Amino acid sequence: MMLLENMSYVEVEAYLVEKDIVIVPVGSTEQHSPYGLIGTDFITAEAIAREVGRRLDIIVAPTINYGMSQHHMGFKGTVTLSPETMVRFIKDITQSFLDHGFRRIVFINGHGGNIEPVRTAFSQLKYENKKGIFEIISWFLLPEVQEIERDIFEDKNGLHATPSEVSITKYLRPEAFKTKPTEKKKITKNKIYFPLSREEFKKAYPDGRMESAPWLAKEKYGKLIIEEAVRAISSRIRGILKLKIL
Amino acid sequence: MMLLENMSYVEVEAYLVEKDIVIVPVGSTEQHSPYGLIGTDFITAEAIAREVGRRLDIIVAPTINYGMSQHHMGFKGTVTLSPETMVRFIKDITQSFLDHGFRRIVFINGHGGNIEPVRTAFSQLKYENKKGIFEIISWFLLPEVQEIERDIFEDKNGLHATPSEVSITKYLRPEAFKTKPTEKKKITKNKIYFPLSREEFKKAYPDGRMESAPWLAKEKYGKLIIEEAVRAISSRIRGILKLKIL
Amino acid sequence: MMLLENMSYVEVEAYLVEKDIVIVPVGSTEQHSPYGLIGTDFITAEAIAREVGRRLDIIVAPTINYGMSQHHMGFKGTVTLSPETMVRFIKDITQSFLDHGFRRIVFINGHGGNIEPVRTAFSQLKYENKKGIFEIISWFLLPEVQEIERDIFEDKNGLHATPSEVSITKYLRPEAFKTKPTEKKKITKNKIYFPLSREEFKKAYPDGRMESAPWLAKEKYGKLIIEEAVRAISSRIRGILKLKIL
Amino acid sequence: MMLLENMSYVEVEAYLVEKDIVIVPVGSTEQHSPYGLIGTDFITAEAIAREVGRRLDIIVAPTINYGMSQHHMGFKGTVTLSPETMVRFIKDITQSFLDHGFRRIVFINGHGGNIEPVRTAFSQLKYENKKGIFEIISWFLLPEVQEIERDIFEDKNGLHATPSEVSITKYLRPEAFKTKPTEKKKITKNKIYFPLSREEFKKAYPDGRMESAPWLAKEKYGKLIIEEAVRAISSRIRGILKLKIL
Amino acid sequence: MMLLENMSYVEVEAYLVEKDIVIVPVGSTEQHSPYGLIGTDFITAEAIAREVGRRLDIIVAPTINYGMSQHHMGFKGTVTLSPETMVRFIKDITQSFLDHGFRRIVFINGHGGNIEPVRTAFSQLKYENKKGIFEIISWFLLPEVQEIERDIFEDKNGLHATPSEVSITKYLRPEAFKTKPTEKKKITKNKIYFPLSREEFKKAYPDGRMESAPWLAKEKYGKLIIEEAVRAISSRIRGILKLKIL
Amino acid sequence: MMLLENMSYVEVEAYLVEKDIVIVPVGSTEQHSPYGLIGTDFITAEAIAREVGRRLDIIVAPTINYGMSQHHMGFKGTVTLSPETMVRFIKDITQSFLDHGFRRIVFINGHGGNIEPVRTAFSQLKYENKKGIFEIISWFLLPEVQEIERDIFEDKNGLHATPSEVSITKYLRPEAFKTKPTEKKKITKNKIYFPLSREEFKKAYPDGRMESAPWLAKEKYGKLIIEEAVRAISSRIRGILKLKIL
Repeated sequence: MMLLENMSYVEVEAYLVEKDIVIVPVGSTEQHSPYGLIGTDFITAEAIAREVGRRLDIIVAPTINYGMSQHHMGFKGTVTLSPETMVRFIKDITQSFLDHGFRRIVFINGHGGNIEPVRTAFSQLKYENKKGIFEIISWFLLPEVQEIERDIFEDKNGLHATPSEVSITKYLRPEAFKTKPTEKKKITKNKIYFPLSREEFKKAYPDGRMESAPWLAKEKYGKLIIEEAVRAISSRIRGILKLKIL
Repeated sequence: MMLLENMSYVEVEAYLVEKDIVIVPVGSTEQHSPYGLIGTDFITAEAIAREVGRRLDIIVAPTINYGMSQHHMGFKGTVTLSPETMVRFIKDITQSFLDHGFRRIVFINGHGGNIEPVRTAFSQLKYENKKGIFEIISWFLLPEVQEIERDIFEDKNGLHATPSEVSITKYLRPEAFKTKPTEKKKITKNKIYFPLSREEFKKAYPDGRMESAPWLAKEKYGKLIIEEAVRAISSRIRGILKLKIL
Repeated sequence: MMLLENMSYVEVEAYLVEKDIVIVPVGSTEQHSPYGLIGTDFITAEAIAREVGRRLDIIVAPTINYGMSQHHMGFKGTVTLSPETMVRFIKDITQSFLDHGFRRIVFINGHGGNIEPVRTAFSQLKYENKKGIFEIISWFLLPEVQEIERDIFEDKNGLHATPSEVSITKYLRPEAFKTKPTEKKKITKNKIYFPLSREEFKKAYPDGRMESAPWLAKEKYGKLIIEEAVRAISSRIRGILKLKIL
Repeated sequence: MMLLENMSYVEVEAYLVEKDIVIVPVGSTEQHSPYGLIGTDFITAEAIAREVGRRLDIIVAPTINYGMSQHHMGFKGTVTLSPETMVRFIKDITQSFLDHGFRRIVFINGHGGNIEPVRTAFSQLKYENKKGIFEIISWFLLPEVQEIERDIFEDKNGLHATPSEVSITKYLRPEAFKTKPTEKKKITKNKIYFPLSREEFKKAYPDGRMESAPWLAKEKYGKLIIEEAVRAISSRIRGILKLKIL
Repeated sequence: MMLLENMSYVEVEAYLVEKDIVIVPVGSTEQHSPYGLIGTDFITAEAIAREVGRRLDIIVAPTINYGMSQHHMGFKGTVTLSPETMVRFIKDITQSFLDHGFRRIVFINGHGGNIEPVRTAFSQLKYENKKGIFEIISWFLLPEVQEIERDIFEDKNGLHATPSEVSITKYLRPEAFKTKPTEKKKITKNKIYFPLSREEFKKAYPDGRMESAPWLAKEKYGKLIIEEAVRAISSRIRGILKLKIL
Repeated sequence: MMLLENMSYVEVEAYLVEKDIVIVPVGSTEQHSPYGLIGTDFITAEAIAREVGRRLDIIVAPTINYGMSQHHMGFKGTVTLSPETMVRFIKDITQSFLDHGFRRIVFINGHGGNIEPVRTAFSQLKYENKKGIFEIISWFLLPEVQEIERDIFEDKNGLHATPSEVSITKYLRPEAFKTKPTEKKKITKNKIYFPLSREEFKKAYPDGRMESAPWLAKEKYGKLIIEEAVRAISSRIRGILKLKIL
């Protein structure tokens, strides 16, 4: 596996003779209800991204562990960048790869709140006339993944602290779940608007779940969902590799 | 019609006793191929927004005529804000309405490039714990509108300088089209990545169209599409009016 | 009339072969007392700018409808950019025209609060070594206009919600005045300092007028004042056209 | 003389019991032709401000020696803040005085390029709803001063590196002029636009003078002009002291 | 071990009843010569920080994998934040912990370039009057660690890509070193200034080492140095726990 | 003495033919207990810097009188830049000198709070790939100076409002001390953390001293300490002059 963190610059130089693509896992540090891990979003993104990199022989950069999670700040342990900081952060990371000659920079993302600031950063780079493919792929939005989630969890996957992401983390870090609850609770679906502030979120979703049933999570489901996400993303990246840089 | 620009502050005070919603049309000043008007995006957004406001008795704010159009800067006459400026601009506009007690602030949008910076501005306000519904509705992304576009233009609407938006502006400003061409040209569909810089865009779409057939535009289609957009947006806004502010 | 919004990029290209000047109307969305329209400043700037453009065959860009109006925020319906946002906004707009080869960029302005941030934006561009004439002409500060205002309104024009600007908007949008008051009120002149915050402004000018008698406004005066402003600005722009770009 | 720099916080506390005004001299570090000193603008502002403070028993803060001088950067030794930095700098300085209870903060200014960023900073503070009188008085723009300049130098004072400011610095620092030229040169008056970039300025004014005859400077004139500036500013500050803080 | 990423918000709530301290490992993604890993700085900081957390029962936050490494950008694979972005990033992270009631926020740092921006972020928070202990402890600057380094490597530890940090990563990730060189090279010591730009750095240190002998690295040394760093940092943190929050 | 403020650009041009070094004194405007002057930090830095410049024939720029003093804002008369503003301010100053061809830009500093923002500004310039030596030398941190301070004041010099800096200002401005107290007070040494907010600082150090005995200050000590500081800095600058610009 080509983890950038385990390579030397000499090895990156050799890689760049042949390829111009890099994968960057990006997640967040935010509450995932009493059932899930605060690190869920980067743990899932990292595992999926690294497996994609392994299969396609692509360098995987260190994981971005902090993201834009302002709406979860009503719950202890959440850490958030402001959207404006996130824009600058992603811009600087992407610019660094551009400086070295990378031209296909693919963020594999585990958190919905990151999408707009990451894309705004891409636009800011394009405004500055930078060349190349800047892409963010959110594994949980892939139709293939959503299909398998529906197969397993029916209408109980919800939007946050989903049994899908909890299954993945359970598969990857079973020991962390020894202290987590497993009993069922009620699922309530209200008409809500987005985005929500930290206070609004807590009123709408008092225990941090968004219409989800994380108690349905199982390690074996996690394994299946990772596999599907890896397959779907690999296919998209093969497409990206075929595109001509304009 | 309640145009904010034609009201006095006394009239706004009276309105705020009863309602907390405002509509803000937002477009851009950017090339729309040799066939279309540089003002297309704000002309369409303004016409649709004002008709929605008229039907629902909602204040319509002055139109935001400039947006995030960096990718069109390869064509003369395009004017763009940087994404970062656009974020701040929308944030200040929204904050001003919040200061007066508005709590449902709905941008009716005519340009795809605006969506991410507008949403990033919303997130920034939420990060600052501001209360209320901040929404952007892009008329050209509504399924109802896209259906009627397919009915009329089949697979020739494309993504930019579409016969749909050209029809609307032709309906609204027929005289401006006396100097515009009408002959057919080839439609080419390439595998392209997004976002594009100004230089990349011009390589991908040398005459400014994105897979569209603007020569198919007709005034009567414009009238139909406006009506459909107004109907679909009105329905969404009725939904917004029913939501409880958390 | 050459409105940028009604042109195509092909038409702008043709224009740039011969000329390098563009006019940009800039106003604000702010209270103008119970007598005047919230849109006064951009309505007046737009009408004057377009007539100047028509007479001199100069492209007129879409109107900037929002400006720096922080001091009016104590009155409902006012919308303001922060001064810092206004600086960036004007800088990006001006830069866009520079990118296309425009070298004489003339803002025609309807609002005093815009002047300093617009000029600070110009300085910032010059700090970045950009070439060309960046000018802001405020119609209400022209000696020719102030003379005709004194002729008509004597010492009752005041500083905000003036009978002069109300006359112009009345001439342009008579229907908007059906719901506005017309009775006389007292004019008070106090020693005041500037700039004022929103709270200070409201203490100094409780109904939003600044020493003005907007009830004196008449459509026919509006017509006269527009004509004088157009004449005076046209003369200044002819001067600008003769200057050599250094 | 109450120089803030020579006081202790205990002495400032005592002062604030009785008064809420502070004077801040602000200048620049920029070329003043071969005839004048690079420090001209802060040397003059400091001398005038301190004498005003002495006569009126007002605290005078340390001099701001660097300002917004981008247009002079074509000449060695000029140091400039970007306009955006100048806005933030002045905002922080002013905010600090506000924090301590000062409510009349008067900048006495020696350089035209500072005026707009200083005023933009004031507006930004007012946008943030800060209370108090923020004023900038530019000694060289006072009608009383300009009258005496016309009396002495007739039409040869010009706009930069003026015999007026050179006289003041000659009076204050005669020894610094031992190495400066005194011969006459031509005065050329061209139609020029403003603002100018560093390159444009150097084309317009190749030796750094702007239509001025600095060789006319005399120490005795400097003494006279300082006196007139001090008198005129003192009178304005007496007016400021009478104003009510809203 | 209390890794924040493996906890739920309920568990963090329980922790905060008793403690107000959190440890945040921070490193960088930057070249470490042909001998060392690009991830060296965060791999070392993470391992040390987690062991400290384990021994003292303190929550350890997810590792910050990217830092301020502008000077290494001449070598492929380095990723850097601008100093200004780093300031904002650290400020947001720290602010998030403050929002939850943490009052002792200790960054354990593996990279010299991070120190100033991290401290500038702390100052910015203090400027905004935030309460609490914000500390950055750089393991490689601790006298205890430097003593053991001198014992083992004498004068050959150098300043970057040191045998000390290479030993630690070798101990933690032996497999990553299978592809790295081990032969000796020359050590050159020049008089150099700091900070260096990417180009200056490459001229001064052509292979990325700074006066170091990374070929001396051994796994067993790594184990020893980690132990010493953990011991020294634990002692400092015990001191921090005794301080009273003012 | 070559004070930039007394030179013309012609004289700077001549200097730059031979040399590329400039000295910039930087201090702060902040409380120094009831015993010391608010201007202490820039008065000391200026005196030392000018004497160094005189001895080494180096241009000395105008003094930066305001710095980063947020922690002293609990005491009247302190003026502070935010750390972020200080970064931009120093960056613009340094960039101006770079634009003219200076390559060794040495800030001589009188205030600890300036060090990190000044260095962050240097890093930001290096991030932008600027060439040259950017150095800040804080006279009070020099071992030679600290040795003489220990000789004279033993363990009573403390950290702020030190008898050392008070001695220097007393030597330079004896008249300012006529109104200052001289009686002894208690010295308390507490375990404190840094950085402190304005409120924390005032709790830790209620009269503004930090473990110091400013009543020990004497003019003759001031003279000695200046001499030592000048000698030590001159020696460091001679070293800087020998370095090769990479």
